[in-house]
Order: sequence, then structure tokens, then C-alpha cells
Amino acid sequence: MNFGSDNMGPVHPQVMEALVAANVGYALPYGEDNHTATAIARIREVFEAPEAEVFLVPLGTAANALALSALVAPWQAIYCSEVAHIHCDECAAPEFYTGGAKLVLVGEEAAKITPAALEAAIAEGLARGLHYVQPGAVSLTQVTERGTVYSLDELRALCAVAKARGLPVHLDGARFANALVALGCTAAEMTWKAGVDVVSFGGTKNGLMAVEAIVFFKPEQAQNVAFLRKRAGHLFSKGRYLGAQMAAYLEGGLWLDLAARANAAAARLAAGLAEVPGGAILHPVEANMIYAALPRAAHRRAIEGGAEYFLTLEDVAGGAGDDPLPARFVCDWSVPEAEIDRFLTLLRG
Amino acid sequence: MNFGSDNMGPVHPQVMEALVAANVGYALPYGEDNHTATAIARIREVFEAPEAEVFLVPLGTAANALALSALVAPWQAIYCSEVAHIHCDECAAPEFYTGGAKLVLVGEEAAKITPAALEAAIAEGLARGLHYVQPGAVSLTQVTERGTVYSLDELRALCAVAKARGLPVHLDGARFANALVALGCTAAEMTWKAGVDVVSFGGTKNGLMAVEAIVFFKPEQAQNVAFLRKRAGHLFSKGRYLGAQMAAYLEGGLWLDLAARANAAAARLAAGLAEVPGGAILHPVEANMIYAALPRAAHRRAIEGGAEYFLTLEDVAGGAGDDPLPARFVCDWSVPEAEIDRFLTLLRG
Amino acid sequence: MNFGSDNMGPVHPQVMEALVAANVGYALPYGEDNHTATAIARIREVFEAPEAEVFLVPLGTAANALALSALVAPWQAIYCSEVAHIHCDECAAPEFYTGGAKLVLVGEEAAKITPAALEAAIAEGLARGLHYVQPGAVSLTQVTERGTVYSLDELRALCAVAKARGLPVHLDGARFANALVALGCTAAEMTWKAGVDVVSFGGTKNGLMAVEAIVFFKPEQAQNVAFLRKRAGHLFSKGRYLGAQMAAYLEGGLWLDLAARANAAAARLAAGLAEVPGGAILHPVEANMIYAALPRAAHRRAIEGGAEYFLTLEDVAGGAGDDPLPARFVCDWSVPEAEIDRFLTLLRG
Amino acid sequence: MNFGSDNMGPVHPQVMEALVAANVGYALPYGEDNHTATAIARIREVFEAPEAEVFLVPLGTAANALALSALVAPWQAIYCSEVAHIHCDECAAPEFYTGGAKLVLVGEEAAKITPAALEAAIAEGLARGLHYVQPGAVSLTQVTERGTVYSLDELRALCAVAKARGLPVHLDGARFANALVALGCTAAEMTWKAGVDVVSFGGTKNGLMAVEAIVFFKPEQAQNVAFLRKRAGHLFSKGRYLGAQMAAYLEGGLWLDLAARANAAAARLAAGLAEVPGGAILHPVEANMIYAALPRAAHRRAIEGGAEYFLTLEDVAGGAGDDPLPARFVCDWSVPEAEIDRFLTLLRG
Repeated sequence: MNFGSDNMGPVHPQVMEALVAANVGYALPYGEDNHTATAIARIREVFEAPEAEVFLVPLGTAANALALSALVAPWQAIYCSEVAHIHCDECAAPEFYTGGAKLVLVGEEAAKITPAALEAAIAEGLARGLHYVQPGAVSLTQVTERGTVYSLDELRALCAVAKARGLPVHLDGARFANALVALGCTAAEMTWKAGVDVVSFGGTKNGLMAVEAIVFFKPEQAQNVAFLRKRAGHLFSKGRYLGAQMAAYLEGGLWLDLAARANAAAARLAAGLAEVPGGAILHPVEANMIYAALPRAAHRRAIEGGAEYFLTLEDVAGGAGDDPLPARFVCDWSVPEAEIDRFLTLLRG
Repeated sequence: MNFGSDNMGPVHPQVMEALVAANVGYALPYGEDNHTATAIARIREVFEAPEAEVFLVPLGTAANALALSALVAPWQAIYCSEVAHIHCDECAAPEFYTGGAKLVLVGEEAAKITPAALEAAIAEGLARGLHYVQPGAVSLTQVTERGTVYSLDELRALCAVAKARGLPVHLDGARFANALVALGCTAAEMTWKAGVDVVSFGGTKNGLMAVEAIVFFKPEQAQNVAFLRKRAGHLFSKGRYLGAQMAAYLEGGLWLDLAARANAAAARLAAGLAEVPGGAILHPVEANMIYAALPRAAHRRAIEGGAEYFLTLEDVAGGAGDDPLPARFVCDWSVPEAEIDRFLTLLRG
Repeated sequence: MNFGSDNMGPVHPQVMEALVAANVGYALPYGEDNHTATAIARIREVFEAPEAEVFLVPLGTAANALALSALVAPWQAIYCSEVAHIHCDECAAPEFYTGGAKLVLVGEEAAKITPAALEAAIAEGLARGLHYVQPGAVSLTQVTERGTVYSLDELRALCAVAKARGLPVHLDGARFANALVALGCTAAEMTWKAGVDVVSFGGTKNGLMAVEAIVFFKPEQAQNVAFLRKRAGHLFSKGRYLGAQMAAYLEGGLWLDLAARANAAAARLAAGLAEVPGGAILHPVEANMIYAALPRAAHRRAIEGGAEYFLTLEDVAGGAGDDPLPARFVCDWSVPEAEIDRFLTLLRG
Repeated sequence: MNFGSDNMGPVHPQVMEALVAANVGYALPYGEDNHTATAIARIREVFEAPEAEVFLVPLGTAANALALSALVAPWQAIYCSEVAHIHCDECAAPEFYTGGAKLVLVGEEAAKITPAALEAAIAEGLARGLHYVQPGAVSLTQVTERGTVYSLDELRALCAVAKARGLPVHLDGARFANALVALGCTAAEMTWKAGVDVVSFGGTKNGLMAVEAIVFFKPEQAQNVAFLRKRAGHLFSKGRYLGAQMAAYLEGGLWLDLAARANAAAARLAAGLAEVPGGAILHPVEANMIYAALPRAAHRRAIEGGAEYFLTLEDVAGGAGDDPLPARFVCDWSVPEAEIDRFLTLLRG
């Protein structure tokens, strides 16, 4: 019964088999191997973007920071939501990689920024001129950090604001597949057709060991990335083991199957949480992540019963009374329905 | 017949099995899993350093750059050899991670720097005062970039120079196991007992998929590293897959067996190369890497026969006459004796 | 009639004379001259801090950024108000100098942050742990960016919060003298006695050509600053011309006289502005800077009459109706009373 | 009798008068004043470059570092001589400003690099590819750090190598006027007509208080510089005092007169030094800087007699015997002939 994060679950067996299969004989290093070539070809196919420049890296923070460092100068602003992973959860990696660019926080609602708020932030920067960081790039997260999903219209509207100012748009797609399944659209529709220029295409949270792809739809924006990745220590020497994972992930729609499973699990869990007496769902549950407030007694029963998520018995004991205590619940591809139901039974008491 | 680099060979099957075995159920992320704990415990045991602070990262460049960034300020010098990997092969990663520290190059002989040359470089920096980068740290490589191995006495003498100036010593141990086997000493003797403060303890070139450990023998020098690693995007979320590799590597002396195999292969190859008519070994062959000059005709025969190393038929055709052409040959743990012999047969013509 | 900024006014004649007097023969470069020595001695005397480490630099942004870079690591947070000069007006200089530290914005009231808001921000950072920037330093501005002045009690309370968390406190004193005159206390009381560790002691806005002093009350925090200043290109070669300015500034209380004049001018102007029909003072006027909203017609009359401040006829024409339009008015030491009165006459119509 | 450095002498009286004259009333800040406009216009005129982008900064290290940071990416190389000021005397400022670019040292003769050595360094970098810093820019110094002057042919040949590789050329012109007078050519001939793209046009060492101009002949290379200067804390708020100095410097050929005086003084001194028994001139004396070796006894007599340069009695006492001891002698614009002769008399004994 683990709902802590989708980075705590196992690698999918097909991916593991692909790693074993790739482990034969010699292969060219630094991403010049055949597995990486296959992975890149499949990414281009999935995104309907034959010209896309693709870079595999092991970690999502690296993918985001490298992507942003290719887009902005150190005296520029990256516009993102107040709860963006790049701001809250990467310990100033974007600042490090960009040489000191500033993350300018745009107010959010359920982790989504609005075109009006974005436009206001950009306009304010321009008005300040030389004395303030100037518009550099916009970074969105899909699935957002609150488990919501930007609709295609919302994405298009935000990208339109950016484009009107000449700004590139980055999409942090750590849970890209979950969002895609939720929207039921194509990868192209959710990215370059909507106006996204670069995407951090995540795999680690959806059944891979550690691979994310940085996908640049405009090759001219990717000219420096090979060097930036190398000097950051993110160019795998044994690149075949990144390539093999990503190739297996995209083969036969595995990535979408896994995301669909995770989303379905979250829907089942959310439906049950909504019925826990005294509980409340805090944000629309649109992918595989749920924010809910539950009575302290319910939390206590669940944790004592073996459930794991980012709350401890100490947290639960922390407050007086039985006011509902908010928590995050994430479902990964591997969580069995039975575990969800057992968890809900514990919560209901 | 691949002698290109030890990063082109496969992962050892026991390591692969350990990954599969670790791939069950949920595990805490960010290196708080049991596999990482086991790996760290084994590293401390191997180094006889129960207080050592250990950080696993996927890549060697990251290990080196993070280690150095923990030791020096941006206005300081890192002393290293002219052929040091950190200078020649990391695309300014140390400069990036340290915020602009300068690599001050110390002349070398077969990739080894001497205490006198090191002392002179430090003294010159001090004499220049405020206007030049001031002494920050010393970085040595073991096995060196020319395949030679510092003796314990040589290491001690260099560390003594550093210590007399109050400087920490970093050891780039990308081929640590190969050196250790060559010297026949303990890991402690080759590091902290000789005066080394921090080691990049490599595994990737010796049978792992992608793991290096940064080992700080003085915990007070490691205080910032968790943060530096995180902001660099090198903190694995699914840390168990790093931990499991490293734990398997150190179990039952596997790491030393693999290094011994690679060194033995290189010795066999070197003996054969020395007998190729017109050929010459360029540096003492002390581990698993050989620099040799061979007649162009020999190179041509080998490459046309299927041998792979960092020389192309174009390179071979490049010069006039049959003056010997230098090349590097590296043996990894997996190279069969028969392949070596076949290669030598081709070279001999 | 210039109320644009106190960096638009002239250098005080006594300072100019000191520059001319210093311009004789040879002098040691890089701040080793006698004028710099005198300046530093006077600063130590003024601050009653004989052990203080003092660094002269030409510009305030450099003073702030250097001071902060001596206090925080690149993975740390600098807490400041949402309108802090270091955030809004230095084009990411603190991020550049610190190697990417993050300015964490603390909500403000009339540009003052409260102990509760500061404590909450620090606590939130600690709770997020490794994934977010960790507490590094607190930066306050005195006079604030809205023309208000922290009382000694307010400063002490904020410093107490910082100290309880082990954080150093930086004070951006671009208008230090104006605040000091306003509070009627000693320089020591407004800094180290209240808990401030480092102050950017401004002179440029108060009659100097271009000198600010970075004053570290704890020498151990200043150990790197000589190198940081040098590598930033802020170590004057002809240091005597910085030293001579600062020495003259502090001689015979000139600096306090000039600030008193500027504050008195602002008080006179504020009193008059409050009486402009339809006008309103927006923040308490406690030093030499005023924020006031005035009818558009009043602005138009003043600007057409020759008054200069950061508002153009275009700005004034920008909106409909005659809703009051906010503007900033700054008085420097040199503004004649007659100019103020003439300006007020124009505004009143 | 001061021959320590041309940064130890006074400001020329005409420059001082210009500062006093500029010190009247209010002026727009941040370089938007009339004095700065005049200075920029005169620089464009002097360089016959009406489109040049010009930025005034107080210090030479800042000028060099800013110029280079506009030209190279952090993963690139700046080629310079082993004795270049940017390498030896700026405490890693170029590394700081560029975000970690590497200074690749090219061997020199009397501080001049040769086209062949430059070409070899570039070719080696390209051959190493992704793993090493890639060609970014070439930086030359004129007058060189050994007092020699590149001829126009030499400059053209070096620039031709750079251009053939698509690299921009920076010229560190800390002693630009001295070189120009030495060559007897135009400023345009010594820069853009020879292939130089950006020049750090020094004034501080030739009679100014503290002003250097960064002159970009290709405006497209200067697009970021206003922001880079601002975030580095080098945008003067009271810009008129930089502008007034530079405008006075260029008025009526003052800058060339001063340089001619300094060069003539050095020629007189060099002629005398060559006749000191046991002495030797070490490099061709082509501008205002001399490297000479003199008997220890001669040094002792001079220093005891009141001469000042970068040698102490302790240095002189340091060695045994009377082997000649090398020293640097610099003449600034203000040194009287009588002082030179007195110095020579002391040296001769």
C-alpha cells in the first residue's frame, strides 16, 4: 500500500528484459549506440516530429535544467507557477544551469497559471527594463504539481501569450504519458501543435529505471545542448542502457498502457477517498495524483495498517481535534486494485 | 575485438542479476533505500573508513566535478596534470561546478606529476597573490590517463606537498580497481593512508552500468555535497538501482576479480604488441590501458580484420610512409584471450 | 526641479576638492593607498567596530551582490522583501555573484517584512529539505524601497529571527545616512548592535561620485571577499580616488549633514504634497523618498512646468479621467527649498 | 621616482577639470547623460566606426571579462597567451563572467602568440570534439604583457587564423594608446581593419581616474552587453563622471599626447638601462614598459635612493652573488625626465 510517489515503484519487466537484452558485447559509448538511435527514432515518431533533436538523460531535474539553460540567458526570467517543480523541488538547479536566471513566479489555481497572469508578469518585466530580468522563457508542467491537467485549449492560450512576446515554451512532462492518456490526444497535439518548443519527456515515474528525454522541436534551439549536457556530467558513457529503456518504453504502446493503469488506479482511489466520511478531494483528479484532506483518525488507521505516503504518525498527532489533514496520494503503474481497496477500507475505519 | 575503451563493454551478469533482484515492490527514493545503504556500508568497509561520507552518482564526470566543487572556491586553483581527464575530457565540467575555478596544469611525465612540479605551481600561485587564483586543491588520477600507476610512495609524496600547503587532495579513480590490483595494496593505503581526502571511486569502467561513488574521508568536507548533487540533477530518484549495482560490485570481491582480468588481458596484449615488428610501447603498461605505436600497415590489417579502437582507416591512410602511428588500447573485464590473440595475429600480418 | 532619484544629483564640493587634493604624485594601487586607509579607519570609528573588515567598491549593486556572495552557498536562500532592490533592480546580480542562490520573497507592508513572515519563510524552506534551497541569509533594506525606515525594535526583532536560525543578516544601506538621521541613533545601534552582520554602506546617493563600502562586522565572514571583489572586476586599481571620496564624506559629519538636508527637503515636499487637492501620500515618509498619488492634471502642470521625475506626459495621458496617479519623489542633498516650493506651486495649479 | 605601474600615477589635470565641470546640477543616471553621449561619439569617431556599440566601465578587468562573456559560451575556449593579463592577473574573472569557459594557453615569445601556435591550439580543440572545450574566441593584448607591440601584419595574421575558424577576436587594450603611438597607425587600422571585433579600450593607465570602454565593432555581438554589465554591478548610476573623463581624454588628442610622453619616457629609460654595467634589456621596448635585468647592487642603490618598482630590498638580498635580477619598469604619462635621469644615476652608482 504505497501511495508516496510514482518514483518509488519498480521498473516494468519488459524494460528490465530490454536492459538484459542490450547487455551483450561491445557498444559505442556516449549515445552513439543502436539502442539510443532506436529510442530517438521512436520519440520522433511518437511526436510526429522527424526533425526533433532528442537528448537522453537519467534524471528529470537534469532534463528540465538543461532544457531551460538552452533557452534563456542568465539575465533573463523563466516564468513558472508558484508550485512548479523547477522552483520548489530542484534546489535551484535551473539557476545553476542557466548561470543565475531568475524564476519569476506566476500565481496559480490548482497549479495552473492563466494567460492573463502570465501576460501581466511578462509586461511587468518589460516595463522594468534593464534593471530587472527580462523575459526569457515560459515553463509549464503537465501533469501539474497538483494533479490537474491543462486542456489543449489552455495550453494553446498560454503558448499564444508566450509567442506574442517571442518567448519559447518549455513543458515539464515528468508525467507526460499520464497527461496524454487523460486528454486522449496525440503527443504532437499536446506539444508543438499547441506551441510548446521543448519538452522534458519523462519516463522514470512511469516504469523506467531512470530515463528522461529532452525533445527540442526546433533544432536551432538545441545547438548547444550536446555541450551543456556533457559539461554537466549527464552524457552517459554506456548510453545503450538509457536507449534500451526508452526504446522498450515506447514499443507497442507500453508507455501509454502504464499511464492508463496509473490513472485508472488514481480514479478508483479518488472515488473511494471522496466517500471517506469527513474527507474531501482538494483539486480535480485528472491523472495519477490526488490531493485530499482526511480526518486525522482515518490517516492514523491507514498508516498503522501499513499504508505509506508522505505523512507520518507524528504529523497526524501534530494538531488538535480531528480537522481534516491534507495529503498527497500518487498511484504508479504497478499498484494493484486490491491494495487500493484495502487502503480505502482502512481509511473508512 | 574491441579495445576502444572500458566503457564500451557490457555489465557483468552478477550486477545485472542484482538489478533484477532489486526490482521488486516499492522502495524509498533519493538514496534512502536499503540497497544504497548496503552499498555505502560496503564502501566504508572496503576503505576501512567507517566515518566516510559516500555519495552515489551515475557518471564519472559528475563525481569528479562534484568532489572538486566541495573542495574549492571559485577564485581558487585546482592543480592537475596536463593530460588530466578533468582538464581534457570533461568539457569544462569542473569550471561549471566550481563556479569558475581554474585548472592549473602541472607538467607531467607519462601522465604523472612530480612533487617538485606541484610545489612550484603552488608557490607561483601564492607569489602572485590576489591577482591570480589561489591554491585550492590537488587532483590526481589513478590509473593515470597514460595507463601508468602512481606507486604508494609517489602518492604519499604528492599528498605531502599538498598537505604542507593545507590543500585537500582529490583522486580521480575512474579505474580505481585496476590500480589497486596493480599495486596489490589496500584501498585505504591507496587513499586516506597516503593523504587522499576524496576519491571518485569508479565502477562504470569495470563492469557496472553507471555508478561512481564519491567518497569523502573527512566528513567536514562533505557537508554541502548532498545539496550540490541535488542541484546538479544527480540525485537519483530511484536510488535503489544505483545502490544495487554498487553493492553487487563489492560483494565477494567481484570488483577486484574484474580488474584483475582486465589488467591481465592488457598485459597479454602489451606483450604481444611489443613483438609486432616496428612497434613500440610508449608508456609503462601498469593496468589495463596501453599506448603503443605501430606501423600503419599493421593498423590497417587489424582494422580491416574487424578490430575496433580509436583509429580509423582514414587516420591510418593519413600520413606518408610507414612511420609508426600511436594508438590507445584498453582492455575491459570481458575481453576474451582469444580475441587478443586474434588481434595480435592480425597486427603481425 | 528634479525629484527623479538621489543618483541624479551632483557630488558635494568638499568631496570634489578631496579628489583634487588626492591627485598628486604616485600612490599605491589596489586600495593600499593612504586615502583608503583613512576611509577604512573612519568607517570603523563611525561604526564603533575596530575589527570590521571594510571593502570599497564603486557601485551599490556590486556591494550588495559581493556581500551576499560571501554569506550564502549557491544552494541556499536569501530572504528579502518582494520589493527589495536586490530582487527588483539588480538584474539578477545576486544570482550571478552567488552562483545561483535563490531570492525567496517575503511578503511586505510598506516594504517592511515582519518577523512572522520571515520565520514562516525560513520554516517552509527547512521543511522542504534537500529539494529546495535551504536558509542562507536575510537581507533587509534601510531606508526601504518605499521610503519607510525600520525602527531599531523592528530591526532587532528581524535579526532575532535570523539568529535563532543561525542566519547572517545583510543590510542594504544605499540610503544608510538618511535612515540614521531619521532614527537619530548611532551607526552601531542600527547595525551590529541590532544583529546586522554586514552592511552595504552607501555613499553614491548622498553626495559621492561612486563609492559604497561593504562593512563586515564579523571578520570571519569576510575571508573570501578580497578575492570575490577582484574576480568580479571591482578592485579599483587607482584606489585612492575611492578612498578620498569616502574619507571626505565621513569627515566632520558631512555625510549626516547631507542626509539631514535631503530628509528635511523630503519632509517639506511631503507636507506640500499632502495638501495638493486630490492627492495622497501612500506610505509614511520617513527619510528622503516619497510615494504619493496625485491628480493627472497636477502631474501635467508640473511636468510641463519643468519638473522631472519618473513620469512622462505620456504616462499622464495614459489613463482616462482624473484618478490620482502614483509617483515616486526623491530629494537629494542638493535640492533647494525654492525648487520644492516652485514644484508645489505648479502641482497646486 | 616611481616605475611600478602606470596605474599608480595621477589623473591628468584636464580630466580632473572635466570632472569638476560636469559636476553641476542634475543629470540622467545609468549612462543616459550628455557626457557619456559625447564620449561614445568621440570613440566612434576615433575608431571610424559610427555603428560601434560602446560601453563604459570603471575597470579593465571588468571590460575584458564582459567583452569575453559576450563572445563565448561556457563550454568554449578562449585562446590567449600564457602571460595574458586575463589569465595571470584577473583572478579568474573571465571564468566567472563566462560561466566557466576555459582559457586555453597558447605558447608565446615576448608575450606574442604566433599564427601557427594559435592554429594548432584551435585544431587540437576541434579534434577532441564534445569532450573538450570548443573554439570560442581569441584574445590578444596590445601593448603585450612584456612591453612588446604586435605589428599590424602580426595582428592581421592572427585575426586571419581566427576568422578562418569563425572565431571573434578580442583585444585587451589596457595600453591601447601606447601601442597606437608606437605603431603610428590609426585606431581603425589596429582594430577592425585588422580583424579585431571587440576592444577593451583602456584609459585608466593613461591619465584617467577609472574608465575603460568596451567597443564592439559588430553591433550584433553586443546585444547582451547592457544586461551583462548591469547584472555584474558595473553600470554606473552617476554615469556622467565616466563620460566626462573619457570625453576629455579624447578631446584634442590628449590621449595620444599622454601615451607619447609615456613611451618617450620609457625609451629614455631603456636607453639608460642598457648602459648600466651588467644590465640587459630582456624584451624589445616598444611602448612604455621595460623588462630588464640589473645587478643586485644597482637595484639596491636605486631602492635605497628612493626609487619605487616591484622589487624590495628583501628581494634584492634574496640571492647570492651579483647575478642580474630581472625587474619590470613602467613609465606613466607624468614621470619627469629628471626623475628618470636621477634613477639612472643611482643605478649606475
